This record gives sequence, structure tokens and C-alpha cells, in this order.
Amino acid sequence: MAPVEAPQRSTQERNAAAAVIAALAARYGNRLVTSQAVREQHGHTTTWIDNQPPDAVVFPQATEEVQDIVRLCAKHRVPVVAFGTGTSLEGQVNAPRGGICLDFRDMNRVLAVHAEDLDCVIEPGITRKALNEHLRDRGLFFPIDPGADASLGGMAATRASGTNAVRYGTMKDNVLALKAVLASGEVITTAHRAKKSSSGYDLTRLIVGSEGTLGVITELTLRLSGIPEAIASGVCPFPSVEAACNATILTIQSGIPVARIELLDALQVRASNLYSKLTLPEVPMLFVEFHGTEASVAEQSQRFGEIAQELGGGPFDWATRAEDRSRLWQARHDAYWAAQRLRPGVQALSSDVCVPISRLAECVTESQRDAAASRLLAPVVGHVGDGNFHMLLLIDRNDADEVGRAEEFLARLAERAVAMDGTCTGEHGIGQGKMKYLLGEHGAVALETMRAIKHALDPLDIMNPGKIFSL
Amino acid sequence: MAPVEAPQRSTQERNAAAAVIAALAARYGNRLVTSQAVREQHGHTTTWIDNQPPDAVVFPQATEEVQDIVRLCAKHRVPVVAFGTGTSLEGQVNAPRGGICLDFRDMNRVLAVHAEDLDCVIEPGITRKALNEHLRDRGLFFPIDPGADASLGGMAATRASGTNAVRYGTMKDNVLALKAVLASGEVITTAHRAKKSSSGYDLTRLIVGSEGTLGVITELTLRLSGIPEAIASGVCPFPSVEAACNATILTIQSGIPVARIELLDALQVRASNLYSKLTLPEVPMLFVEFHGTEASVAEQSQRFGEIAQELGGGPFDWATRAEDRSRLWQARHDAYWAAQRLRPGVQALSSDVCVPISRLAECVTESQRDAAASRLLAPVVGHVGDGNFHMLLLIDRNDADEVGRAEEFLARLAERAVAMDGTCTGEHGIGQGKMKYLLGEHGAVALETMRAIKHALDPLDIMNPGKIFSL
Repeated sequence: MAPVEAPQRSTQERNAAAAVIAALAARYGNRLVTSQAVREQHGHTTTWIDNQPPDAVVFPQATEEVQDIVRLCAKHRVPVVAFGTGTSLEGQVNAPRGGICLDFRDMNRVLAVHAEDLDCVIEPGITRKALNEHLRDRGLFFPIDPGADASLGGMAATRASGTNAVRYGTMKDNVLALKAVLASGEVITTAHRAKKSSSGYDLTRLIVGSEGTLGVITELTLRLSGIPEAIASGVCPFPSVEAACNATILTIQSGIPVARIELLDALQVRASNLYSKLTLPEVPMLFVEFHGTEASVAEQSQRFGEIAQELGGGPFDWATRAEDRSRLWQARHDAYWAAQRLRPGVQALSSDVCVPISRLAECVTESQRDAAASRLLAPVVGHVGDGNFHMLLLIDRNDADEVGRAEEFLARLAERAVAMDGTCTGEHGIGQGKMKYLLGEHGAVALETMRAIKHALDPLDIMNPGKIFSL
Repeated sequence: MAPVEAPQRSTQERNAAAAVIAALAARYGNRLVTSQAVREQHGHTTTWIDNQPPDAVVFPQATEEVQDIVRLCAKHRVPVVAFGTGTSLEGQVNAPRGGICLDFRDMNRVLAVHAEDLDCVIEPGITRKALNEHLRDRGLFFPIDPGADASLGGMAATRASGTNAVRYGTMKDNVLALKAVLASGEVITTAHRAKKSSSGYDLTRLIVGSEGTLGVITELTLRLSGIPEAIASGVCPFPSVEAACNATILTIQSGIPVARIELLDALQVRASNLYSKLTLPEVPMLFVEFHGTEASVAEQSQRFGEIAQELGGGPFDWATRAEDRSRLWQARHDAYWAAQRLRPGVQALSSDVCVPISRLAECVTESQRDAAASRLLAPVVGHVGDGNFHMLLLIDRNDADEVGRAEEFLARLAERAVAMDGTCTGEHGIGQGKMKYLLGEHGAVALETMRAIKHALDPLDIMNPGKIFSL
């Protein structure tokens, strides 16, 4: 979207930003950029939230530089916004009060790989694909795959997850320790490399998912997994979303350690057929993947096939050939682009909610009905093993009536998920887009507790202000 | 140990406690107990830390009663100590400043079991064995097994784990949501039942492991697992601790989803042979367990046997018969009692540390050498899949010299673990016993951050004061 100037900035705030920029320019030379194009690029949102660019972008190369920058910002009370790849979905990198964006492009090194311990130490700017390239020769991989080739720092900050989470967990489970620069400019080390600890408060999990509002992550220690000996993938059609969800429940209840289990509704299957040149039947479909030994993935695939059949689904076609798997999962990864092609030229807006799996079919089908009744085109893809699904709204932004219907639909979607004992976001985070649902989901006491923590750690409110909590 | 009166209590503090007790007696009748015996029982420590009894013990029956009690305590600035089964190992339930102990004996109900969602909602006083009894008919179990039949509230408060953690994680991973009464008397709900969420700060993980210093847990939503279709267990001797640790590393690197992998050193094997009437060779020994289908546990067992052999260990004897398994794991569970019998009449003191698994053999063997050089009898048992091990010091408390040597040994053990990028406690928590290691492990910035959170949520310092942080 076109950039919008921060609405409520005083002359004093502008002067403070100018003072910080002058000092940063002297210290960082051409690593400090204030051009309109670069600023706008860093306020980019993948949604309909307006672009609110920072006053300047700086490219730090070390934790000490981040400390220096944050101290300077703290001195002048200027906002600090951390930036990885800009692929967050709820306006997390926007700068509603202006300020300094720290782009971690240059802090993208792998500092250590400890193969015996199945962990690595990295800088926040490395992307998950680059990390996995680096790890492949060691027989290791980092399993969290949110779709986008996001930076690991950003993934930690938003508590990202994705297709593998049903087996490998989310960023919450796969970050062992963090280094972060606090609002004071001090560096916190949240933990060491032990796989578990009962020593003091869990500062790692406090920073993970805090969306840059408590500190800027400058180093991560990640838990790794061994690349599985064998992988089997397949697709399985179902007569209804409910049957697909019930098959998922039974699969997990049976203890089948499914690595991925993804729902595409009929509309999304049609989109993917068109975009990815597949010939799938246009009915609800599960994409599944199993990791293990040759024998175990064969057994898992067989048992899943039986479950699918029991619930009226199938046939389940599975493949262990890497190229067949790749084609399938490429189509799943391209679901976003495929969906967009259903209505070229409009804005695509991805929203996600997460509910207990027993309520998933009900939540998806009610939401599909709601979308239809609201005359909205919104294909569904879901990480159904976790009860998490996305609706991709395809919106003509020039149609005010349609925008209004979409906004009301999204509010009902969040409320529906919370009413089913779920959450308004399973993996995208709150950012700016979902701040309005926070109180309804958590209640006043929890929200006040979050605010108390925020205030204790960032009394000047300089760390990514205007995110999670309203300004 | 004999009770010790709180050292630094003013007349004002005593009067405040008396006022709270009078009010509680009026409201709770015989559910408020002030007898010396009951008070001492609630200040009981399983270590050499002195017993510091609370001023009174109250047995709440509902969250609202806990709110009422906490509000009364807050009004008079009287400490609140939550009590489950009193099996914590670092003095967590002691009352160094007196105050009111809340014994959750009567809040032990299972409020809901959601079999399709693999979760349940419980009150904090239920013990893990009672919960698993309740769940068995549904084909479900709660996998965290710290050895003691502890209450789930206490296990969450200390971030407990135990033998199954290598596969199923710790309390951090298996608590989906909590209700807790804060120092203000308000009730916080940390999350709903969705399997994952990116909505706001992770208050669940903040409360888990906070040892009652941020709030009193009154309800837990736990993640459950299906009882595995097949279980195989076995024991495997190794020529050295190093060989056993290397076999563990290779097992995990190979992606074998071992459910339990426990090290007993030669001294512990001797103790267990005597106590549990086993005839194991008195060398380092791994006790392992595999969960899965019949085919998969057979495959896992075979592969583990091959790894063991490769590292000079074996033969690996494995059993799938429930009674053979039970005998084996009973012996493992009885390791504490078995070790105590090595030197009857003395104090047994269990300390635990956790290091990256690549440093485990080194940490264990250095600690064994250190114990020998310090003339201390200290058998080792370890949850080696996590790099976590226990040394059970058998100490004659009447021998001041020996007590001094043990204290110095424990400090070196903690420092050694931290120096190896580990933690001074993998699962027992900080309590009173390990407060002195907190700064060395976390550093000043992290410790100040923890204190800032504590102060923000409990400004009067009434929630389990004198734990984690020094008074």
C-alpha cells in the first residue's frame, strides 16, 4: 500500500528522530539509509494495513552495534523496529510512530553447529532456507516452515510455526536460547544450550512471540532435527471438510507421528489445480507427510490410508520419490499465489485462527458459510493437525462495501475461534491487525499482566510501539 | 529437619499473620490448621535445608477461596505459599518469612477430559498417578514422570520433567493453559485450549517454572498422549559412562524416538541390585524404553542394540512383557531409596544439573572424580537423552567436615554444568537451595529482568518470598 505518514507525531518526536538519524549517519555511514523507497520497503505490509515507514533504516553488523543504536534511540525516546524479511502478516514491521528500523540483512551468519547436541547458534537475519542449505551436509535440518523464506529472528519474534508444527512444534519449542538487546541497551542471554532447565523464569519463551516489543533479538540457539532417513508424502480426497478433520483427529489419536497434515478445501484445490497444473479432484483434500525409517513411513502411510478409508476418504496415493514429493509440497507452498489467481488484481489477505481440533470442522465449515453469505471469496488451507487454518480473503480494495464486509467477517472469524476455546491467531501474531481481538481473547487481567511486563521492561515504550497493545 | 523459626520477622509481621489467621479461621473453620505438627509437615524439605514452617495451613476448595485468601494476605502483606505434595527438592515449600500455606489436597478434581483434543482440565492438587488412573480407560496418559507422585500444580510450578522428557518434553511443553491467582487476588487465564497460539506474551510459560513467586495455580489444561500400542524396554551394559553417553547421542542423532533413556552408574547399579534384587553387571547401564507400534518398537530396539554394540556395549536385553518392564522401571524409580541404603541412617540429598549432551560424559565423569576426591558417596542416575543427571549425596549431617565438603562439591557441580553451557538445574528448580547459583548462570541482566517481572506482578513480595531470588 501507499505509505501513510504517522498520524500523531509531535514536532518534538520529529526532532528526536532527526537527532538520532544525524548521530547514526555519523557512525554508520552508508549503512544508514533514509531514502523514501527504502523506508517504504521496510514499512511494507502483506495485508491491507497502511504502510507506515520508519524514519530511517540501519543495517547493523553486530550485537554491540544494536546496543549502540538502541541506546541512542532510548536517549531520544525514538522507536526501534526490528526487520527480517518483511514477510509478517499483521503489520509487525510498520512504524506508526516512525523511528529507526534495524534491518538484520547483514547479521546472517551461522555462528556454530553442534551436531552431537542437535543445535546451532545463528544470527537473526539468516533465513530458514539459507540455514537449511548450510545444515544439509551435516544431515540436519531446522523443521519450522512457515511457508515464506522468513528470517529466523522474525520467526522467533512472531512465534511462527507452519506445516511441520504438528510433529516438530513451533518456534516456542525450537528456540533453546536467545540473545536480545533490551530497551536499556543491555544484552540479555535468556538461557544456555541445555535441552531443558528449571532455573528461574522462562525468559526465552517470554521473548519468543513478543514481536519486538520487549527486545531486539540478536542471536538464537536453535534446536535441530536429523534429516529423516525416509519421507513419504501423499494426497487424499475426502467427501467433506468434516471427514478430513475426523481423519486427522483419528490419525493423531492413534499415535501416528505425522510430520505434516494439511487441509485444502475444494476452492483451494481448484486454485491449486489451475496454478500448479495438478489434476486433483476438487473436493476437500489432505496433504500428508511421514518421517521415519523406510519401514516406519510405510507403516504410517498404510495406517493413515486405512483411517482415511474408514471415514469415506481416499484413495490415498503416497509417494516416496523426492521429485513427486517436491511437486506436491511446492503446490501446497504456492497455495497463496494460486488462490490470488482466482481473482487477479485484488488484494489477498491471509488470516489465521486456531481451535481445539474437535471444533475444527465446525469452525471451518461455519467460516466457509459465513464467507459465502458475506459474498467473499476465501479459500481455506489449514495445518489441521494443530487445529490451525488460514482463510485467504481476496478483496477489491476499491470496493468499500466489500472491504467493510471483509472486516466484519474477520472479526467474526476471530470471535468464533475464541468462542470455541481457541485463539485469534495460531501463528501470524497480533501485530497491528489483531490488536482489537486481544482483550476478547485474553480478558482484562491477562492483558493488564502483559502490559505490566511490557512497562517493566520497556518503560519508555520505544520497542516496536503500537504492536500487540494499542498505542 | 527440625523446624527453625523464621529469622528476621518483626513484631509487625507476626501481628499481620495473626490477623490473617483470625480472619481465615472465621471463614474456613477446621480447614484452617495451625498445629505445630501440620505446620512442620508443610515446611518439610527433602534436603538439608532447615524446615521453616508457615504460620498456618489452609485447605481451599475453589479458585474463589484462593482469591479470598490471597486478597486477605495481600491486605496484611503476609506471605502465600502453595503446597501440593511437598516432594520438591530445593526447599520450594518452605516459609522463611512465615505466612499462609495453601494446601491443594482438596482441589484434586479432573474437570474435563477432551479425548479428541488430547487434553484435560484439572485442579492443581491431583497427583500424576491419580490423573493417569483416571485417564487409563480412555486410552490416554499424561507422560511427565518426575519419579515422585507429585501434584500437577507443583510439577507445573517447578517446571518438572523426568524419565519421559526426552520424547514427550517437560511441563513447559505439556501445559496448554493455566488459571492462577495473582498477588492482587485477580484470576489470570493464560491461554485457551488451542494447541498453539501467537497471540500476545506467553504467560503460560511465564507461570510454569515460576515456583509460586508470580501466582498460585488453581487450574491446569494439560496436553495428553495416547497410550502407546506397544512398549518395549530393556537394559544395556556399557564399559564406561562415556560409551553409554555416546550410545545415547547416536540414538538420538539417528532419529530413534526413544521414550526413556536412563543412565545408572556402576555405584547406582550396585545399590539397585541390592535393593531391588536385580543381578545386573555392576557397570554403567542404560535403561531404555520405546513406544510405538509392535513393528516400530521392534525396529527401534534392534537399531538401539546395534548402536550399543558399535560402542562396545551390550548385550541389549529387551522385553515387551508388562511385568518385566514394570520390574525394571520400578527399580529405576526406587533408585533414590536404593542409593540411600548404601549408607543407612544418613541424609540423602538429590541434586541435578543439565548440560548439552556432547558434554555429558565429561560432566558426569569429572563429577564422579570430584566426589571421590571429596570423599563423598554419590551415585549417579541420569535422564541422559536430555543431558540431565542427578547425583545423590549421602551425607552424615553430624559430620560438619563432610557437610562442608558436600556443600563445596555441590557448588562446583553447578559451576561445572554452567561452564559447559548448561544449567544448575534441569528439573528440580531453584527454590532456596540453588539461589546462590542463579547470578552465575544467568548473569546480571537476565536476573534483573526476572526481578523486574517479579516486582511488576508482585510488588508487595507476598508470593512465595525467598524463593528463586534471595530475600
